Parts: sequence; structure tokens; C-alpha cells
Amino acid sequence: MTTLNEIQTPCLVLDRGILERNLRRMSHAMSGHGVALRPHLKTAKSAEVARLATRGEAGGITVSTLAEAEYFADHGFTDILIAASLPPAKLDRAAGVIAKGAVVTLVTDHVAGAEAIASHDASFQALVEIDSGDRRAGVRASSDMLPEIGRALGPKLRGVLTHAGHSYSCSDTECMKEVAEGERMAVVKAAERLRGAGLDCTVVSVGSTPTMTHVERLDGVTEARPGVYMFQDLFQATIGSCTRDDIAMTVLASVIGVNRDENRFLIDAGALALSKDRSTDGTPGDAGYGEVWDIHGTPLDGGWKIERVFQEHGAAAGDGPIDHIRLGDRVRIGPNHACITAAAHDRYYVVDGGLEVVAEWGRVNGW
Amino acid sequence: MTTLNEIQTPCLVLDRGILERNLRRMSHAMSGHGVALRPHLKTAKSAEVARLATRGEAGGITVSTLAEAEYFADHGFTDILIAASLPPAKLDRAAGVIAKGAVVTLVTDHVAGAEAIASHDASFQALVEIDSGDRRAGVRASSDMLPEIGRALGPKLRGVLTHAGHSYSCSDTECMKEVAEGERMAVVKAAERLRGAGLDCTVVSVGSTPTMTHVERLDGVTEARPGVYMFQDLFQATIGSCTRDDIAMTVLASVIGVNRDENRFLIDAGALALSKDRSTDGTPGDAGYGEVWDIHGTPLDGGWKIERVFQEHGAAAGDGPIDHIRLGDRVRIGPNHACITAAAHDRYYVVDGGLEVVAEWGRVNGW
Repeated sequence: MTTLNEIQTPCLVLDRGILERNLRRMSHAMSGHGVALRPHLKTAKSAEVARLATRGEAGGITVSTLAEAEYFADHGFTDILIAASLPPAKLDRAAGVIAKGAVVTLVTDHVAGAEAIASHDASFQALVEIDSGDRRAGVRASSDMLPEIGRALGPKLRGVLTHAGHSYSCSDTECMKEVAEGERMAVVKAAERLRGAGLDCTVVSVGSTPTMTHVERLDGVTEARPGVYMFQDLFQATIGSCTRDDIAMTVLASVIGVNRDENRFLIDAGALALSKDRSTDGTPGDAGYGEVWDIHGTPLDGGWKIERVFQEHGAAAGDGPIDHIRLGDRVRIGPNHACITAAAHDRYYVVDGGLEVVAEWGRVNGW
Repeated sequence: MTTLNEIQTPCLVLDRGILERNLRRMSHAMSGHGVALRPHLKTAKSAEVARLATRGEAGGITVSTLAEAEYFADHGFTDILIAASLPPAKLDRAAGVIAKGAVVTLVTDHVAGAEAIASHDASFQALVEIDSGDRRAGVRASSDMLPEIGRALGPKLRGVLTHAGHSYSCSDTECMKEVAEGERMAVVKAAERLRGAGLDCTVVSVGSTPTMTHVERLDGVTEARPGVYMFQDLFQATIGSCTRDDIAMTVLASVIGVNRDENRFLIDAGALALSKDRSTDGTPGDAGYGEVWDIHGTPLDGGWKIERVFQEHGAAAGDGPIDHIRLGDRVRIGPNHACITAAAHDRYYVVDGGLEVVAEWGRVNGW
């Protein structure tokens, strides 16, 4: 039996019990709204997690990179939405995912992008990306461009998609509900405009963990694509998508230095193992570069957090006692933002409430 | 002939001519000071770069992880300093690097750590880590602990080491010179104290790119361990370690969205491909998440930078014209902090002033 006391640090620890509870909660919520759950695998990037997340669902998944699309197709997933626009030069590689046996759906918010998809030999499906307020990608539902892009896609058009990333700047539930309703209205309006122009709009796709956690109605929507709900993190806890008890993924680290005079200690997880994500900065739950929990996942007494990171060192500061901290002790770091922290690691060491490592699950990184 | 127009994005581009110039400059400077250059490979993590960086030098290298130590030993490097403390549980794995044929030097700042190294069967060498003002790791040169740790290492003791990481908070050359002299004085004093206690102190090791760029004298020092000088970055340019023309590594990305109404565009390099490092934040050279250069490495007109990042999207904003930006165009992003940005990538596409890819060099990531 291998436990968290024996494996190399730093590494990712994933608690399967918490993961399964998070999956059930979202699955139940989406089923209650009558929409398909098409989980976004950009956080987990793992076939094992994807199998659990799609259990009892229609089986469609969402990904953010071609490397993910290829990996999941190789692992038997056959309905893959690549939810970030591809430059035309990447379409040949995306066609290779179809050759692996998957239906591949692309997104675009540009006439030139739509034309490149339409004129490609491969049997892509495509959604027009709608900006529902995030101001990242997408066209506004009211834009003159919308029907143009739809028409440019020709018979490959299947519908519309949006991502209300601006839900991340909410600080209360009311805000989240409003953003969720704005997300729904934008994409439903876009769908109506396409249909009004005589175009196909079977798919009406929304999604972000905060909005799908708080959304009150999803009339007119066909599918939802939350991602980080699987693992949750300190930022999601801060904005009310979850509680700290719902955080399924942590970074296991070893103590490599103890400074009793200044009541601080060093761990072997720094900017690379934790990431430099500071999502909780400026929130009441500011966790520095991560909260310090003991090997069982219980926060250390005195509000310890990683105050400074260097490439391979994390410096922990807190108000609690340090007497019991010893060189070589192991701690677990609750992450600000699971998606970013996970990306430096190639696998999960899976536990199920205890210290025993019950499985190792791989991840697909890179592009 | 493959060029930067054909390879998959996002990826790292490394300009060999600039790299070689940076290497020559540091090599010449250290040789002028009469100290050995033991380059820190935590930035490059590449055997090919390490071979160039050690050409004409004694051959010793510095690394930050066991994964790097193993990789470089496998690639023929035989004198490896692991410059971050290891927890005792990692000593067996470090001994495996000796078994590959390398001399392995460890660092410690703790009596218990020193005892673990001393009592291990493997023929480690060891340095006591000194805190010269960075307040990260190490004991003060004046600390009562210093001779205790030295004695605890027994015959494995070889000397002392420090890293003046606080040079990164300097904003002018005078500050840098002062930090460099403080770094030197701390470690020379520590060496004298060990020798005064009848202990061996052959190695007196300092190093950071800013201090080694500006240091005026290194009397009493035997070796220097700068790292990021090889690639340089926007932060190093901001604090005066280099100019923008010295930046050898960039991230190649494709334009995936153009919003002419709001004069901004999106690229396929976001938080993962660029990192969330914001080292230039609060400096006069604030570059957001990176500066946008054209495919040849020339800054776009109008001060374009990556203003927001999402997992796989970077949003570029600037004052210059956007008319010539097209979907699928390629740009290069100058990084805030090369060490952190490089870590998400598994290889370098090497160019030599032009667009032709003249080599692919691997990297060792993880732990």
C-alpha cells in the first residue's frame, strides 16, 4: 500500500470521493434544468475523470486544445467540442480527430474563420461564439455579423455557444444569477436570430461553473459546459460556487526549511508546482499562492498560506504555532485556481478520503 | 525548410544568436572576475543549452530539481549542484544521480538536514546555504547555527552558497551593485567563520543574473550561478540586467480573433502558454502578460501587450493600428519571466535571426 507519505513531492492529489460528489451535484442540477451536461475537460485533462464526469450523461465533452481533443478521441470519446477558436492552419489537425472516430464541433466568431471551416474537406460541425458580456471572444447576439457568420458556415452550422467568464468577477449570489440569466438570454436571442434567418440552430450551449451553480432557469438552452466544478478551488469557494470542503484537488509538498525565529517555513512547491495564479487576490478569502493544509487536508491552525513563491520554493506564513513543523513533513496546498495549478503536473495521485493512493490517473498537457 | 509560419502554436522560439551573445557576455564577465561559471539550468532545462553555456567553462552546472539532475546526468554532465534543499526522503533519489556517474552537491540550512546528508551512504558533497538578505532560505552568516550545520555535515562539507534573490526588487544599477556586494560579503564572511572553526570551505558560491551583471568585485568567491541571463526577459530588461534586444526566448502564437470595433485581438496563448507571471507589474515597463512582437521579433506599432489571459486565450490591447492584423497571423510574445513561461512547454524551436527553424531542443519539466 502506497500512501501520501511515500510518493515524490510536489505532486497533485485528487480525492475521488469529493470529485464524485461534485460531479453528482452538477449532473443533478443540469438534469433538473433539462439540459445536457457536456463537461469541460480543460481542468481535469484526464480520461479517467472524463469517464466519471460523463457517466449517465449523453457522452459529449468539451475541450480547449487540439492536444486534448486527440487524447480524448484516443481514449474513446466520440463527441468532442473544441471550445476555443482555431486559426485556419489548425483545421487539418482537427480533421485528424474526426479520422480517429469522433464528431468534432468547432467554434468561430469571424466570417473568415467560418469560411475556412466551411471550405475544409472534413465534416466538422460548428457553433457561432456569442459574447454574453465577457468581452473575450464572440460576437454580440445583436451583431450584424451573426447571420453572416452563420451563413458562411453553410451546412456545418449547428448552433451557438457562449461562456459567461465575467461571472468570475461576481462577489455574491445575486450577481451570479444575473450573469447566468444574461448568458442564457444572449445565446437564446442569438439562436432565435439565426433561426429567423432560416439557419439551423439545434445547439444552444452555455457554461461556466459559477453560472451553472446559481442559474435559475435554462429555457431555450440545450447544453451546459462547466469545468472547474469537478475539482473546485479557493477562488470558486470565495465567489460562492462551493465550500472549502468541496475542493477535490490539492498539491502535496514537503517541508524543506523551517525558520522558527521568524515563524515561517519553506516547501518544495513554488511558482511552477502551484502556478502564479492569484485569483483570490483582493477577495476576502485571499489565500496568497495557496492555503496550507495538513496531509489529511485539514487547514493548519493559524491561517497558514503560501505568501511568496520562487521557482521551486514556496514560503508559508501564518499566525499559528510552528513548533510541530519538522523538516520533511508533508502538507497539502489548496489551490487558488485548479485549472492553472494542475497544468504543471502530468498525473493525479488519487485518494479516497484517507492517505492511501488508490490510483494514478494521467493528464494531457501542452498543445 | 520549416519556418515559424508552419509549426504548431503556441510554442517556444529560441534565437540561438541572441542566446550565444548572452552566454559569451556572462562567461567573459565571470572570467574577468576570476570565478568559475556554474550556470543555473532551471531556466533552460535543456541539454543543448547547457552544452553551449558550459563551453569553455569548468563544466559544473546548477539545477533546481531532481528531475533536472537526472536528466543532465543522463546527458553526460558530471558535476551537478542541486541548489534547493531536499527533504531527507529525497536523498535516495539524489544518490541515484551519483550512480549515473555525477558528482552531486547538495545544500542545506538546517542541522537535521545536514545530519541526514552526513549519515547517508552516498558520497554527496554539501554546501551550507546562507541568507544574504533574500529571506527565503539559508542561515545568516553571523548565525550560531552556521558552524553547527557545518560540523553536522562532517567530511561532506565543501563550502557555502547564497542567492541574492532580493536583487529582483532593485530598480537601478546602484541598488544592484549594493546587493551584489552584500551577497559577496555575506558568503565570504560565512566562509571565514567555517574556516575559523576548522572546517573545510573550498567552495564559495554566489549568483543571480542581476547581481552577476552588475557586480564590481568577487574577491573570496569561487563560483557564480546565474541562470536567466541565457534567455533574459522583460523583467530583467526593466531592472537593467539587459535590453529588450537581448531577449532570446519568445512564445509564438496565432491570432484567433480580431475585434476591429474595440481595437483588440485574441491569440492562442493564454495563462498556460504564457504563465500568469506578472513580474513587470508596478514597474515602468509593465508588459501585462507579455509584449506583442511580430513574427520577426519586432514590437508591433503602438505598444501592444497581452492585457488579459484566460486558460488558452490571450487578449492583446494597444494603441496602434489593427487594420493589418488578420485571423491566423503569427506573433511572438516577449515574456515577463522566461523561467516560468518556459515551464509549460516541452521543447524549443530554435531560429538564428530569421524564420527558419534550425533545430528542436528538448526540455525536462516536472519533478
